[in-house]
Amino acid sequence: MTSERIAAFSDGVIAIIITIMVLELKVPHGADLNALSGLLPIFLTYVLSFIVLGIYWNNHHHMFSLTDRITGGVLWANLHLLFWLSLMPFVTGWMGENHFAPLPTALYGAVLLFSGIAYYILEQTIIRSQGANSKLEAAVGTDRKGLASVVLYAVAVPLAFVNQLISDAIFVLVALMWLVPDRRIESLFDEMQRKERST
Amino acid sequence: MTSERIAAFSDGVIAIIITIMVLELKVPHGADLNALSGLLPIFLTYVLSFIVLGIYWNNHHHMFSLTDRITGGVLWANLHLLFWLSLMPFVTGWMGENHFAPLPTALYGAVLLFSGIAYYILEQTIIRSQGANSKLEAAVGTDRKGLASVVLYAVAVPLAFVNQLISDAIFVLVALMWLVPDRRIESLFDEMQRKERST
Amino acid sequence: MTSERIAAFSDGVIAIIITIMVLELKVPHGADLNALSGLLPIFLTYVLSFIVLGIYWNNHHHMFSLTDRITGGVLWANLHLLFWLSLMPFVTGWMGENHFAPLPTALYGAVLLFSGIAYYILEQTIIRSQGANSKLEAAVGTDRKGLASVVLYAVAVPLAFVNQLISDAIFVLVALMWLVPDRRIESLFDEMQRKERST
Amino acid sequence: MTSERIAAFSDGVIAIIITIMVLELKVPHGADLNALSGLLPIFLTYVLSFIVLGIYWNNHHHMFSLTDRITGGVLWANLHLLFWLSLMPFVTGWMGENHFAPLPTALYGAVLLFSGIAYYILEQTIIRSQGANSKLEAAVGTDRKGLASVVLYAVAVPLAFVNQLISDAIFVLVALMWLVPDRRIESLFDEMQRKERST
Repeated sequence: MTSERIAAFSDGVIAIIITIMVLELKVPHGADLNALSGLLPIFLTYVLSFIVLGIYWNNHHHMFSLTDRITGGVLWANLHLLFWLSLMPFVTGWMGENHFAPLPTALYGAVLLFSGIAYYILEQTIIRSQGANSKLEAAVGTDRKGLASVVLYAVAVPLAFVNQLISDAIFVLVALMWLVPDRRIESLFDEMQRKERST
Repeated sequence: MTSERIAAFSDGVIAIIITIMVLELKVPHGADLNALSGLLPIFLTYVLSFIVLGIYWNNHHHMFSLTDRITGGVLWANLHLLFWLSLMPFVTGWMGENHFAPLPTALYGAVLLFSGIAYYILEQTIIRSQGANSKLEAAVGTDRKGLASVVLYAVAVPLAFVNQLISDAIFVLVALMWLVPDRRIESLFDEMQRKERST
Repeated sequence: MTSERIAAFSDGVIAIIITIMVLELKVPHGADLNALSGLLPIFLTYVLSFIVLGIYWNNHHHMFSLTDRITGGVLWANLHLLFWLSLMPFVTGWMGENHFAPLPTALYGAVLLFSGIAYYILEQTIIRSQGANSKLEAAVGTDRKGLASVVLYAVAVPLAFVNQLISDAIFVLVALMWLVPDRRIESLFDEMQRKERST
Repeated sequence: MTSERIAAFSDGVIAIIITIMVLELKVPHGADLNALSGLLPIFLTYVLSFIVLGIYWNNHHHMFSLTDRITGGVLWANLHLLFWLSLMPFVTGWMGENHFAPLPTALYGAVLLFSGIAYYILEQTIIRSQGANSKLEAAVGTDRKGLASVVLYAVAVPLAFVNQLISDAIFVLVALMWLVPDRRIESLFDEMQRKERST
């Protein structure tokens, strides 16, 4: 089992998830603005989910380009990540159709949370499989950005029952954190990583 | 991240879009001609969308065969294009089910317009990433054909509210422009490109 | 554009068609044998369509393994074939849900007919693009088996309005013709091909 | 036809099956816990099916990495396996929606049974195509684990009409047998394989 094979399979699954998600955007019956405007919440959720999946695809790729050996553990940790990502179309549809109601928002956050955890587990599994001088560890350090995303999602889930707009804002914030690499944040992360290494 | 990888992922997404679009062609309940004829508008839209996606796949391929280096900008410009293309099944279903009503026709045009713009942005992002002596720039010049498509789509969107048949005609015209390379138009474009280069 | 690329894209599209077709097998509401037995016609149609698509995938592969150069004509002839194949889930669902009623059976046959014609056009387009000493022509000759399938489908379409069981039998017959290579038929075809070459 | 090609196609089909299965997890209308809890049986079935398909993908890969020559028989034995796997979304939806009722449970088991048989047939077809010194035979021996799975599924199907929980337990047991390689069972299988070889 080469890393290319597992990357290609994961690419396929992510490509399918990102694409069938559009099926949740059900064609409305009317042909007027009313019919269309009812779809706005689900469309916005779709945009967010598309970006999140794009980020995962991107990061997943970088990770596997630094991975040569695929152990059984890596294989299943990867399938575990794909499992959580595969639930994205469902939670996208549910949150969108219910106009960001508390429970669907919390569940959307939970899937993002478990996806984030699964990504972290996969990363650590690969690092452990590479032993000392792990190329991946050298590249990501303790992956503070990944951990920060997990913590933010963990906070967003209960907050959905207080005010779901806060949770939605956190989802967007995490996406922006990966999408628009803020120079200052980037250098902050770099700084932390450097310190960590020199310790 | 090699250009092959991103091209394979894009191929996958386009293959899925082009195929799940058929799910919008809902199986009718009756078994007679009446049941079938009600599907004609959606079938025609399906044919058009299939051709449009085929053209994008074709052009996308040529573009990436001239692209060696994938920067973060190129990656996201590509996902941006895939995002708009991923809406094709939805607008195909909506325009088809509503027999080319004004608003669905305008929205169909808008998705084509944004896809065209996204393609142009991707092209320019790659050209910029290649710097001077860009292989892609040498091949497409200012991509007058791409720009002409964008302009035609931009005109078709408001015209849908005047007479949607004009818009539909424009959609078909743009597709034919790419599908059936008219010798005279081709040589006109070549001429323009030559002039531009010699300047 | 290499032939591998176009073959991989076609593989992807056929893999998706063959798989989403199962979505036409709608989960019934009851949990008893009655609910299940209502699905038998669509299940049988599914089996047939699965085999037909498997045959196309198989033949398509052999064809492209003998194809080096991809011209614009080959590319569009290939998309033309994929277009007709992409309608398989729709006609499978319609024929299955209507228990092989005449019109759905005729339409199923029509899609098979146009797929067969599209395959033949693709074959001829590749052969023409290879000029004299075409490797593909050497392998398939005049492709009598392909032509026979087209003729049989053309006969099956109108016969659906006489007795749809005859049409269904023809669909099964053509599939078996490709699936179970009858020694005598094979040698008959070989014989014809040899004669043709020596002329 | 190289083994890579057939493996890539199979990967694609399995990736699509594993992903469209989520479409059976229909977005509920309400936004409360009630709406969500009704989905629990289908979610649990989804998890099980995801794991089963992950195991098949994994084993399929190992098998084809030991396969060089693809005969017509191997190709069709592989499509036969993919056919049964393609029914997974349907039986997952049916068993899940009916809260593990007897008949849907039996049908789920039947699809697992036929998938297991199809896998075994594929394995034997490849081994036969490799003749003496078959690499695959050397690796799997008589594949007692595969045969044990088939026997267990064959037992689970009729037991669904006695008490479906027993069947469900067997499905989980077989998955665990592949997922969590128990040292003792593994060494037991190894022992058996060694004995068999020395005979």
